[in-house]
Order: sequence, then structure tokens, then C-alpha cells
Amino acid sequence: MALIENSLTIDKTLAVPVYLQVSNGIINHIRQGILKPGAPLPASRVLAKNLHVHRQTVVSAYDELYAQSWIDIYPRKGIFVAKNLPDVVPRRLAATIQSHALASETSFPVPDKIHVASLFNKPADGNLIFNDGFPDTRIAPVELMVREYRRFANYRFTPTYLMYGLEQGSLNFRTELAKFLSATRGLNVTAADILITKGVQMALYLTAQVLLSKNDVVIVGDPGYSGANEIFEHSGAKLELVPIDEHGLNMDAVETICKSKKVKMLYVIPHHHTPTTATLSSERRIRLLELAKKYKFAIIEDDYDFDFQYSGSPILPLASIDTCGNVIYVGSFCKTIAPGIRIGFMIAPPNFLLQAIKLRKLIDRQGEHLLEEAMANLLKNGDISRHLKKANKLYHERRDILCGLLNAHLGDYITFKVPDGGFAIWVNYKQGIDPVKVAQKASELGLTISAGQDYYHDRSNKCNSVRIGFASLNEQELEDAVAIFSKAIKKVSGII
Amino acid sequence: MALIENSLTIDKTLAVPVYLQVSNGIINHIRQGILKPGAPLPASRVLAKNLHVHRQTVVSAYDELYAQSWIDIYPRKGIFVAKNLPDVVPRRLAATIQSHALASETSFPVPDKIHVASLFNKPADGNLIFNDGFPDTRIAPVELMVREYRRFANYRFTPTYLMYGLEQGSLNFRTELAKFLSATRGLNVTAADILITKGVQMALYLTAQVLLSKNDVVIVGDPGYSGANEIFEHSGAKLELVPIDEHGLNMDAVETICKSKKVKMLYVIPHHHTPTTATLSSERRIRLLELAKKYKFAIIEDDYDFDFQYSGSPILPLASIDTCGNVIYVGSFCKTIAPGIRIGFMIAPPNFLLQAIKLRKLIDRQGEHLLEEAMANLLKNGDISRHLKKANKLYHERRDILCGLLNAHLGDYITFKVPDGGFAIWVNYKQGIDPVKVAQKASELGLTISAGQDYYHDRSNKCNSVRIGFASLNEQELEDAVAIFSKAIKKVSGII
Repeated sequence: MALIENSLTIDKTLAVPVYLQVSNGIINHIRQGILKPGAPLPASRVLAKNLHVHRQTVVSAYDELYAQSWIDIYPRKGIFVAKNLPDVVPRRLAATIQSHALASETSFPVPDKIHVASLFNKPADGNLIFNDGFPDTRIAPVELMVREYRRFANYRFTPTYLMYGLEQGSLNFRTELAKFLSATRGLNVTAADILITKGVQMALYLTAQVLLSKNDVVIVGDPGYSGANEIFEHSGAKLELVPIDEHGLNMDAVETICKSKKVKMLYVIPHHHTPTTATLSSERRIRLLELAKKYKFAIIEDDYDFDFQYSGSPILPLASIDTCGNVIYVGSFCKTIAPGIRIGFMIAPPNFLLQAIKLRKLIDRQGEHLLEEAMANLLKNGDISRHLKKANKLYHERRDILCGLLNAHLGDYITFKVPDGGFAIWVNYKQGIDPVKVAQKASELGLTISAGQDYYHDRSNKCNSVRIGFASLNEQELEDAVAIFSKAIKKVSGII
Repeated sequence: MALIENSLTIDKTLAVPVYLQVSNGIINHIRQGILKPGAPLPASRVLAKNLHVHRQTVVSAYDELYAQSWIDIYPRKGIFVAKNLPDVVPRRLAATIQSHALASETSFPVPDKIHVASLFNKPADGNLIFNDGFPDTRIAPVELMVREYRRFANYRFTPTYLMYGLEQGSLNFRTELAKFLSATRGLNVTAADILITKGVQMALYLTAQVLLSKNDVVIVGDPGYSGANEIFEHSGAKLELVPIDEHGLNMDAVETICKSKKVKMLYVIPHHHTPTTATLSSERRIRLLELAKKYKFAIIEDDYDFDFQYSGSPILPLASIDTCGNVIYVGSFCKTIAPGIRIGFMIAPPNFLLQAIKLRKLIDRQGEHLLEEAMANLLKNGDISRHLKKANKLYHERRDILCGLLNAHLGDYITFKVPDGGFAIWVNYKQGIDPVKVAQKASELGLTISAGQDYYHDRSNKCNSVRIGFASLNEQELEDAVAIFSKAIKKVSGII
């Protein structure tokens, strides 16, 4: 029996607990045949002494081995390697067939019917990024989320939260969210009116799939949010494009379309239109509601950045004054916590919401309820509000820093309007500057920036603008990014 | 200035940190107008003394207030309530319109095209539950998950994980998963062959949406898994039903259908068919692959419970010997960790996988990357394998206990075959016992049990069986549940 003690290696500096090192070592001995089924093992006292570890450590190791069925323990007789080892060796289907790599293609035809502009593309390593307008994940309240997750280790409702639950989302979260939306947005809703989704993305997908059929007309702004457009087109919709000006969607253009064809849905980002950052004016909001009522179409109000407002006050959502049931309101915490934490929501009249809930069940049954319970607590104890205040202050500063830098270094080459809120500035190049060439040159110099080809639906070259996010870069990074941006523009313009 | 100190209430026994109690108290004073914009605040030293707290506590409170923009700090001058308060009062759209409840119905028509059998139904409080075969969430390795989440608070890659990422899922997780699947299932795959999904549910939804069009033929077993059937029917498919016997799907019936119509897809749960728990025999697996090759249809192999096998060895998946690219393999950790932790996966040839990845992007952009990174670590350091060993041992015991109890108490009323693995027993009532009445009576007596109406696709009354889960109940609960079950059957049979 000296064999085991001598060949077990214990390293107390490792992260793996010592008792697991002992039990894993013994498992390896069994697997290698050094310890045979039925072989006796030393008493815990003896093994502890020989390994120079506490006896409780060996007891824990034996508990672990017993729990995993590697050993049998007989009172007053001793400890033995199990006669029937737990390592199940799966039966091969056919002895002659060896494991092989996956076939490179299906033998059946796969329809090519899913169209997305592009999949995730990791920016060049080390490049600074003027992104599309994302929050700074370095200030994400990770420690608050972790605090909530720690509670789950001992919380008495955790086993319930880990079972299947409501497709609509955690009741606690929806209850707190209803209060939050009422306080911030004047939305007089209850938990029953809310469906929790994976970000705005899923809310848009559900809405489109529930409402749209082939060739249904959907009105969107142009330039607009290509991510939404591809969801609507996936559902078979035909897009009708209306122009965007400094007050948002052009309502005369909307009405003209309504007069000539049956409109099923209109998509609007009222707070800061993507990509131009224009805020839909109060007058247009009221006119839009009137048009929706008259022509009986649905408005999807994507208010993803309502919580980020730096100058002036935010305007309350369309949904807060919609009395006719025309508005499907969608929002998100992906910009509040982090894009990778997928939490969004949809608010709609019950007949619509029920269809969306049913579809959600078909897609993935339910959301991450632990995450939703954590969000409920973060809302309830004010952590979200506190974080929003801090983030607003920081992003406000960064917006001003970036605007200052652009004015100081690039006033001759670009124009822009300071956005009231949100995460990005819409920059217009002066005539003769090619956004594609600027993006190429900037990338060579160490700055990733959009070439501006996604903003217009026809992907034409008429776009002479670029959207640059300020929220995710600190002061030094903003200075460095503008220096590169400036150099790229000047090189492309032949100035340097 | 004594005012503030006197009216701030500090309670060191509360969970809310003292510094937040101080800062929240001051915010309330400001909001109520007790402290006006521009009013001076006491020096931290003074306030600390008067509140009997550490000076650092007040400094932290002031930091918090400053971060939230409630105060201004002027070096050598002092601390003042901010002149411009951060509480943004949103503009109402129209002064006369009051906040109102949501409309009870949309003004536009909502198509009724989403059909699911039922939404989540919370069992009667206090009732024991013979569920459909779920794991015991009380043994879910929550503390291991929490350990991984704690790492995220300080981990240097966390900000990256919190950004947008790969639609296909975390590369670390897919890499570890590929090793795990190779070791357990003989699947020779790499990270590139895997798409991470939200449970098997999303893998089935993606597969159906990518592959199926209206009236496409899909073969399923009957009785079968209604959750999958409703996904296929949602995609417009026509189901062809084939009978199930003790070796699984009847292959002669499959071939007969293939001869008379174009089959697009076949759905199979090979390891323990839902609901009957039959294991598809090796012979039938090989024949099924031959049929798929000959008739060029896709096989969705739902191997959700491969990791749970108690007697004999598991049979390797069809996917492990498919050389022709006929198999789409889907699996899950929802039974390994907990149903509420939504982690599943799909393995398929690249031309199919790419379409599924694109659709996944449209639906919700990406999964929970923090959760996926946590799973990567749990796989890598062997925690998942250890947990599986323990869970297998426990569920094996519970299966034997339940079989023993059923034989002892209900041998005259039911028959069943001991399942090789999985989470449930398929119980056949002897003639004349009505499953619906048994379920009603059991519910009255404190046991929730299926009435058996979901197993057959036509929801006919021909079903004289019920599926009862053993994994989520401990010994005492199993005894209590069988006692009620027995009483219900005897009452319904008129014996007592």
C-alpha cells in the first residue's frame, strides 16, 4: 500500500483543493490499472499521515470517491476500490468503423433563405475602435451582478428559479421593471404587460414573426438601422423607406405611403434615431400616433437609449400616450449593463403579447431566470438607477470631449450636430472625402471606423457620413482616436 | 448645518452599506428641497464626527454623490449641492394627457398563427410532482457556477466577454465542449463544428426554420415529444407518425413512408425515447443511417440525455458514425446543470451550420457569453464530469427506489420496464384505469401527475400510460408520492 502514498503528488500551491488532488490521483491509479477493482485502500488516518495532510482532507477525498462510485466503504471492514467501476465505456455501433471527422457537406439540400449582412467580425487586435455607439464595458457593474449571483448559492428560492418557469420572464423582474418604467417613462404598466426578451433584437424578431407575412409593407427610416431591416425582410416584408431629417422620420412621406398602400407596421427609434441621432419631435410623435390610428398600422417603438440623455430632458415615449393600442414598445438593458448581457423587454396590448410569448416558448422556452432575478434585485435596491447616473455623467463628459476634439482638429473636413444623448455622433464629411478610403487608411493607422456602407438600405455610395461612438473610449483614447482619424482624413484628402 | 446630521438615519445592521445610507439620505434631502441647489455641505471630518461613522465612510458617500452629479466639489472652497441637479424630469408629450393604462387590444389585427399546446403552468403549491423527467435542481452545482461568476469581477477578459461576440458561441466553450463530446460520445469534432444554443429547444427551432417549408414531410415517433412536434408544425411541416416499440422507432414504417413521399427530415431521441424511454438499438441506428443516405433526408438526433445512463453502457450517437452528412446532432446541459440554465448545442456539417448561425443572429444576436465562459471552465477543470458522476449515482438509486416502490405497492395495477437511464419511467396502467381520473384524484390528494394527453399526436384517449420522473424526488418524497399515487389508483378503481 506504500505505492499509493508514494506516487500521489500533492501541491498545496495549486488552485485545485488538496482533497481533489488526492481523489483525482486515486482515480488515475484506478484508471491505469495500478489499483484493481476490489483492492483495499489505506485508512484515512494512515494515508493522511503519509501524505502529510490533515485527516479531514483524506476523509473528504474518500467522500468524493464514494460519491463518484469509485470506492466502496464497508463499516468495520475498510475501504476498497469499487468492484463495478463507474467509468462507462460506450459501446461502438460498429467495431470496424473508426471515429471520423464531420462530413463537409450535408447529403440533403439546405435552403439559402437566411440573409444577414455580416456575422460578428473581431476588430484588428490593438486597434482603437470608433464603434457604432456601445457602452464602455469596463464600467459595467460586474461586481453588483456577481454580488447577486453569490446570493443564489444559498438563497432558498434558487432551486425554484433553476426549474422551468414562466416564458414571459421572472415575475419579480417584471414587477420591478414596471415600477422603473413608470418612474422613468410615464408608462402606466404592470408585470402582466411585459415580456422579457434577449435584448431588443429578440423583441424585434418576435414582433416581426408574429405580425408580418410575405409582402407586408413596413415603413422604416433611411438611413436607418440595418439590424432591424434584415429582421423585417426575413419575415417577408417589403420595406418602404422614408427620409430622416433633424426631427426624425418625415411624416409627410409616411402619410403619402399610407394613402397609396396598406401599411402593416412602422419602425421608429424616437429618442436618437440610428444612425443620425435625430430625436423625433413631440409634434411628429403626436402626428405619427394619429396616422397609426387612422391607417391601423402597428408602431414598433425602439426606445433602446431612453435612459441616456445629456442635454435637455428626454421626451416620453409614444407608448406613454398611446390610447388606441397602436404601439409595441421595446427597450433594453444591454446598453445599461453591457451588450453581452442580453436583457430586453417588450410592452404591448395583451392580444399581441400573448402571441409573442407563445413564439418565445417555441424558440427557447424561457430566458435566463437567474439573470432576471439578479436584475430584479438591482432595480429594486436602486443599483441600476445609481449606475445610470454615473454612466450618464461619464458619457456626457466623453461626448463633450469628442465634440471638442473634432471641432479643434477636423473643423475643416467634417460637420456634425451635438447629439442630446445616446452613444454616438453622426459625422458628415465635407465634399470629396470618401468614407471608404478614410476607413481603410484609419485601419492601417490603428483605428477601426465604419466605411458608412450599412446606413442606407440600398448600400449605395450616396452616404457621406459616419457614425462614431464616444461612450466606450476614455479621454486619452478619444484623443488618440481623433489624432488617427484626422491623419487618415488628411492623407486621403492629399493634405499630408 | 446641524440639520443634515440630525435628520440622517444610520442603521449599521442593514444590508445597505453605511456610505450609501448617508448618500441616499442626502439625495432625499435634496429631492425634498430641504437642501437647495448650491447649498454648502459639511466637511467630511465634521459630518463623520457628528454621525459617529468613520471619516472614510463620509468620503465614500461624497464620492458617490459626486459620481451621481448631486454635489460639486471645489478644492479649498468646499462641497456644495450641485447647481444643476441630475434628476431629469421627462417632458410630457401633451400636458393634458394623463398617464393611462395600456390599451386592452391592438387597433391592428394580430394573426393567430403561433400554436403551442400550453404555457408554463405552476403546479399547485405544496403538491409533490411526478414531473416529465427533470433533474433535481437542489443538487445543481450552483456554488461552482457562482465561483466562476466571482472570477468575472476581476478577470481581465471580462470587458471583452461583455461586448458583442461570436453568434456561434464562446470559442473557449466550444473548444472544451469538442473535447468533452469526443471523450464521451466518440464525436470527432472541433469548435468550428458547434453552435451553442439556448437548450435543445433553440437547436430544434433553428433546424426547423432553416430546413422546413410549408408541407414538408417530417417523420416523428408516436407517442413522441410534443414539444418538438409543435416546433416542426410551426415551420409548416406535415408530420408522419411511426410507431415506437421496445427498440425505438419502427424502421419498416419509416421505409414505407420514404417509398411513398419525399421525406425532408426525421426526428429521433435515440438514447431514451420520449416518452417511452426505449433505446434505439444498434441495428436500427445503422438502418436509419442507410435510409437517410438512400432517401436523402436529414436526421435530427436529439441526444439530450446521453450523459445519464445507469445500466449497461450508452450506445454512441448516430452522429459518431455518420459519414454522409445526414445527421444534425443536438444536445444539452439543461439536464446536467438545471433546466433554468439554458445551454445546449448543435453539431452539423458547415453548410447547414452557417444557416443556423445566421438565423441565431437574427433571433437574439448571441448567447450569454459569461455563462458560456463559466461553462468552459467547468468543463475544463472536470467539474461537469464530477457532477455527472454524482448525479448518475443519485438518479440510479432513485430509479431503483421508485421501481421497488411501484412493484411493491402497485404491481396489480401497472406494468413498466426499468429504463436504462434518463429521468423517468414509462408506466402502463392495466385495463380499465383512466389516466385522466387518476391524475385528477392524485392532484386532490397532493400529487401532480400527467393525465397522459400529450403523448400521442392526435391527443386521443388511446393512451393508457403515464411518464413519471424519478430524478427530482428524494427517497422520502418518492415514498410519499407512490403512497398518494397508489391511493389515487385504488380510489379510481373502486378498491377503496
